[in-house]
Amino acid sequence: MALESWNDGAAKSAIVDFVARVAKQGGAEYVPPAERVAVFDNDGTLWCEQPLQVQIFFLIDRAKELAAKDPALKERPAFRALLEKNFGALLDNGKRGAMELFAATHAGISEDEFEVISRSWFASAKHPKLGRLFKQCTYRPQVELLGYLRDNGFKTYIVSGGVDFMRAFAEEAYGIAREHVIGSSMKLRFEIKGERPHLLKVGELDSFDDREAKPANIGLHIGRRPLLAFGNSDGDLAMMRYTKGGAGARLALLLHHDDAEREFAYDREFKLSSLSDALDKAAEYGITVVSMKHDWRVVFD
Amino acid sequence: MALESWNDGAAKSAIVDFVARVAKQGGAEYVPPAERVAVFDNDGTLWCEQPLQVQIFFLIDRAKELAAKDPALKERPAFRALLEKNFGALLDNGKRGAMELFAATHAGISEDEFEVISRSWFASAKHPKLGRLFKQCTYRPQVELLGYLRDNGFKTYIVSGGVDFMRAFAEEAYGIAREHVIGSSMKLRFEIKGERPHLLKVGELDSFDDREAKPANIGLHIGRRPLLAFGNSDGDLAMMRYTKGGAGARLALLLHHDDAEREFAYDREFKLSSLSDALDKAAEYGITVVSMKHDWRVVFD
Repeated sequence: MALESWNDGAAKSAIVDFVARVAKQGGAEYVPPAERVAVFDNDGTLWCEQPLQVQIFFLIDRAKELAAKDPALKERPAFRALLEKNFGALLDNGKRGAMELFAATHAGISEDEFEVISRSWFASAKHPKLGRLFKQCTYRPQVELLGYLRDNGFKTYIVSGGVDFMRAFAEEAYGIAREHVIGSSMKLRFEIKGERPHLLKVGELDSFDDREAKPANIGLHIGRRPLLAFGNSDGDLAMMRYTKGGAGARLALLLHHDDAEREFAYDREFKLSSLSDALDKAAEYGITVVSMKHDWRVVFD
Repeated sequence: MALESWNDGAAKSAIVDFVARVAKQGGAEYVPPAERVAVFDNDGTLWCEQPLQVQIFFLIDRAKELAAKDPALKERPAFRALLEKNFGALLDNGKRGAMELFAATHAGISEDEFEVISRSWFASAKHPKLGRLFKQCTYRPQVELLGYLRDNGFKTYIVSGGVDFMRAFAEEAYGIAREHVIGSSMKLRFEIKGERPHLLKVGELDSFDDREAKPANIGLHIGRRPLLAFGNSDGDLAMMRYTKGGAGARLALLLHHDDAEREFAYDREFKLSSLSDALDKAAEYGITVVSMKHDWRVVFD
């Protein structure tokens, strides 16, 4: 049965009704399959982002590995703050400190090498509290929803954090092809070393895929206004409003983490990606709020 | 019959053999459909780019239209050179002059507005020598090849000039979906005007999709190394070498315009996009040269 991990209620009905309307041939709100685009944030929407986004755990492990080879790195303030998990200091360092860390841990290697490193990390890295592999911290109701949308002719996209980090597991975890993953990116430089041309990840930001950058990246990569958007934070609000701004039937969904028992309960106070404006204005903007506690029968597999 | 506009010969055999090898389940060179990516340059590869690339004709018509409303534009050197078709002066103005023209004619409007303007232009704009609509200046053997690849499980992409200009006709002309069009782009800014959020095209270059930028954009948008690349100029060489640099079977094809009778004959001397290095080094790099004159039974529909 479709969406079996969803409880009956307003959220599930909104999804099922919406899909039926746009997929009904000859109906007033019919949309051809080519235009059925659904976009999903990843962190906190498709998988768990607490106590920190998964990519930050990866960043910490990469930094440890690099610092073991080159102890001088530990003297750099951003590295020290990260290795000591002093996130207050890290946030104080601001974007510059974060970029320094990403440049050191995510760049200076080829795309192919990064893929090997991140896949090998995903194979064994475990969530500190949930006691399962990070790649198994995906939400079962969302994996079902992605499949349900594809069964109804939708193309499903991720629009979220680090693009190549997500590409290393999205196909396996969500059935989302690499080319349907849009995210933050470092610049790539084409290089020929020996006989083998490759793409080098350069330590320079190309796109930081959050807030207003999300709809802009949708325009660049997809070139179609989505029919459906699903997010969980203020960083997804522009993408949801862009989606709702199109003509005809549109659906925007906002996951509210209100389930301390089965996952985590948080919104405004999560500094790395807070949910505040989007929650306050959901009704005004026609956004459907999904309660993890009430709308999901199960959370994880 | 597949590829019926292609004459029998080395080029056609190379294509048919290659496709059979990667698509043969259980074969030594089998590649799963998810990874079967083919990338095509557009100008001069999928459609005619003589005497000038189609987008330059569009640029001229847009500039005329804008200058009619605002005569002061005619006093700006880049505009004057363009309107007088003084391409020598235009090229002397260099990238800065070109960017000024693109910013004035392609930006300051929303993506939706640009789509309407370019579609309406395509509906009636005619090639000055071929006496047919620009959108009918596509090469029939290439349209067949795109279909043949898709029938064999390939995803076909364009990696070429202005992304939103190409998106306005690629689906109709080639069966290539908007999200499979990668190209040069202006930055997009998310804006909410009144109730309707949209993407504004800003007069600032995001990516100039030529030479080394082509493989970099393939990495960003697709995240897979292509199996097949087809180009016609030195601007496509990096993309072809990136393609050939992957493990397993790969095919790179280079269209040589040697057919003055049915189309145009040119290579090294075409300043806007010359073919020189790629031709000289085709054999060394394992690139298959396609002769328009000998390998194509017909050129246009």
